[in-house]
Amino acid sequence: MGSITSPRIGELDASTCSLTRTTTPRDVPAPGSPEELSHSYCTDHMVTVRWTAETGWETPQVKPSENLSIPATAGCLHYATQCFEGMKVYRGYDGKLRLFRPDCNGERLSGSAVRSSLPGFQPDELKKLIARLMEVDGPRWLPRDRPGSFLYLRPAMIGNGPHLGVQVPKEALLFIIAVLWPDVSKVKKYGQPGAPQGLRLYASHPDNIRAWPGGFGYAKLGANYGPSLQAHGAAQALGYDQILWLFGAERQVTEAGASNFFVVMHNADTGRLEMVTAPVENQLILPGVTRRSVLELCREKLADRAVGGLAPVQVVERALTIGEIEVAAKEGRLVEAFVSGTANNQYFITPVELIRSGDVDISTLGASGEPAGYASLIKSWLEAIMYGKEQHDWGYVIENEEK
Amino acid sequence: MGSITSPRIGELDASTCSLTRTTTPRDVPAPGSPEELSHSYCTDHMVTVRWTAETGWETPQVKPSENLSIPATAGCLHYATQCFEGMKVYRGYDGKLRLFRPDCNGERLSGSAVRSSLPGFQPDELKKLIARLMEVDGPRWLPRDRPGSFLYLRPAMIGNGPHLGVQVPKEALLFIIAVLWPDVSKVKKYGQPGAPQGLRLYASHPDNIRAWPGGFGYAKLGANYGPSLQAHGAAQALGYDQILWLFGAERQVTEAGASNFFVVMHNADTGRLEMVTAPVENQLILPGVTRRSVLELCREKLADRAVGGLAPVQVVERALTIGEIEVAAKEGRLVEAFVSGTANNQYFITPVELIRSGDVDISTLGASGEPAGYASLIKSWLEAIMYGKEQHDWGYVIENEEK
Repeated sequence: MGSITSPRIGELDASTCSLTRTTTPRDVPAPGSPEELSHSYCTDHMVTVRWTAETGWETPQVKPSENLSIPATAGCLHYATQCFEGMKVYRGYDGKLRLFRPDCNGERLSGSAVRSSLPGFQPDELKKLIARLMEVDGPRWLPRDRPGSFLYLRPAMIGNGPHLGVQVPKEALLFIIAVLWPDVSKVKKYGQPGAPQGLRLYASHPDNIRAWPGGFGYAKLGANYGPSLQAHGAAQALGYDQILWLFGAERQVTEAGASNFFVVMHNADTGRLEMVTAPVENQLILPGVTRRSVLELCREKLADRAVGGLAPVQVVERALTIGEIEVAAKEGRLVEAFVSGTANNQYFITPVELIRSGDVDISTLGASGEPAGYASLIKSWLEAIMYGKEQHDWGYVIENEEK
Repeated sequence: MGSITSPRIGELDASTCSLTRTTTPRDVPAPGSPEELSHSYCTDHMVTVRWTAETGWETPQVKPSENLSIPATAGCLHYATQCFEGMKVYRGYDGKLRLFRPDCNGERLSGSAVRSSLPGFQPDELKKLIARLMEVDGPRWLPRDRPGSFLYLRPAMIGNGPHLGVQVPKEALLFIIAVLWPDVSKVKKYGQPGAPQGLRLYASHPDNIRAWPGGFGYAKLGANYGPSLQAHGAAQALGYDQILWLFGAERQVTEAGASNFFVVMHNADTGRLEMVTAPVENQLILPGVTRRSVLELCREKLADRAVGGLAPVQVVERALTIGEIEVAAKEGRLVEAFVSGTANNQYFITPVELIRSGDVDISTLGASGEPAGYASLIKSWLEAIMYGKEQHDWGYVIENEEK
């Protein structure tokens, strides 16, 4: 990678981005429409950037959304030479468009690319490319008169060269699409009469492991997802929302589905209230941007003072076993469990009601039979930043919308 | 899956296959041409079969080869919902076209599909679809006057539906392409003056692990390949041909690159000559069709008699460590090492010259400084079947070539 101030030929450079405008703009489907629920309806434009081993990154293009034309021999279809990011663009209550910590996603995508033998890039450029796309599509697809709404953003990189040999990719395509996404929080209200208090998780069996030491569970590669769908589908067929992925003979709790997992509980020895989540150091879990933000906010705001009736809590990143959670629940020390993620409001910050582990149901609700409220509090903090109720460094404003 | 005798609606049924002939047939490039060396040049036609969760398998089509048009939101590009097979079609010395044990590939592809939450099928149908493709393209692309030549076949299945949510695929595409492939055995002759005696393997570091118990190393998923390219590229940059994948604290030898690995050596305790390869039961390695054939042939032909000056050898499938290989080499008990695979002649049946393990070079050549000859003998047996020098159940003849 070259210097930031003077991009050399072949570096990813958002400032050179070209624009080809669609001549057939589509109607924007209404919130709650079948198009939105399909998780497949893209805005009018997409970003594509081609890369080759010879010339490096070519000129980025904003152009009409369309299917990708991919050689049947391309590595991305056979060898999973692919990685992606999950992000959202938010229409704030101040009328502005915002991304949430896009530099974190840029950094992670570049890292995931390198792990898949795809080309890295200056992380900063990703947010600039997204901003360019949303300058064009934001005004119509995320209108100012609908504050509090969002689009799902999917930056992805694939090895799309035509060489079928198993080898380091010589060609790649970075693309970014913006997709209509249902706001699950408006559809499925946990804790309402007749509804569950939170997600129901199904602990994975020892014969199905998501990630392993020396593997790639820490990178956002397609290879972490497809092989997990079998267990996910089986859990859903049994009425559970997600797999809780365990690892090792001691049955460490790692991730829940495609989200990070947290437990708030009193330490058995000290009685101290702790928010425990799996560590990133052993590279078994995805280092979520939301995860990191939860930990940083809690360390800042909840470590030494009560907030809204909730007691102070200490953040602890350590290996945690399902056995510990079971004992804590039995002994009345478990206060709340929740997951964090981006893809779905359901997995943004959502309480967990129950974990099925073997033939045991572990209730992860507190003494009151409902979530203690930490998840809800943290969610409100994050939403305030995302939707511009609070001005914060983590909110990246897209300044130059068209019109 | 329904019964074999009366396919129900929605089952994969090669007998209904339609044909749309190309109107622009291409020239067939010569052996050794740049087109052949590109590993990307397909024959005139391809097979595609669409599947949806609602209707099952649709009518298979043989149609002109073309790029695939894939939604930018498709799971195969983001979540590695994909699997494949590696096969070849051989032009025999008797003028006939043959596949080698295609039922094994059909069975494995269906199993890999299920492991990736893609649809299974009756394994038999795969070879029938391939036969239909080669009836059309075989006569021109693998001409009768060029016996001893082959095309590489790539059946693959992808989740190409447009739903971006992380979920079990609701749509899929099975496709089969035939690709020109260089005959490495004619380019790179191991053991010739100035050439190495065999492959040079680089033993993987503990921080880079290909597969894990409870993972998916035993299925031919894209997810096993992309993440392995980083180590492979690093080994190649150091002058090695392939990674030798080790596993666990005891450093078990599992696979070499994308091929299975064998060592012929004298047992330290009994002195018996054994051909040792990793077992399939712990699901760490791909159960190669060539691997299985090597073991079956050796059990049949080499267990109790010498052949062509080579002593009888007992096949042993067990966990084998790199430490054992190192000691056997030191003690003069190591007779030969080789790999087996399909993708490349280099990895069909090829001797191994050297393993670099940490800072130790282990010579895997026998006392004479060259491969003992087991690999070469087994290769000749297999080629006799593939090219119709020997009539054998494993050779599946494609009967109805056009013209």
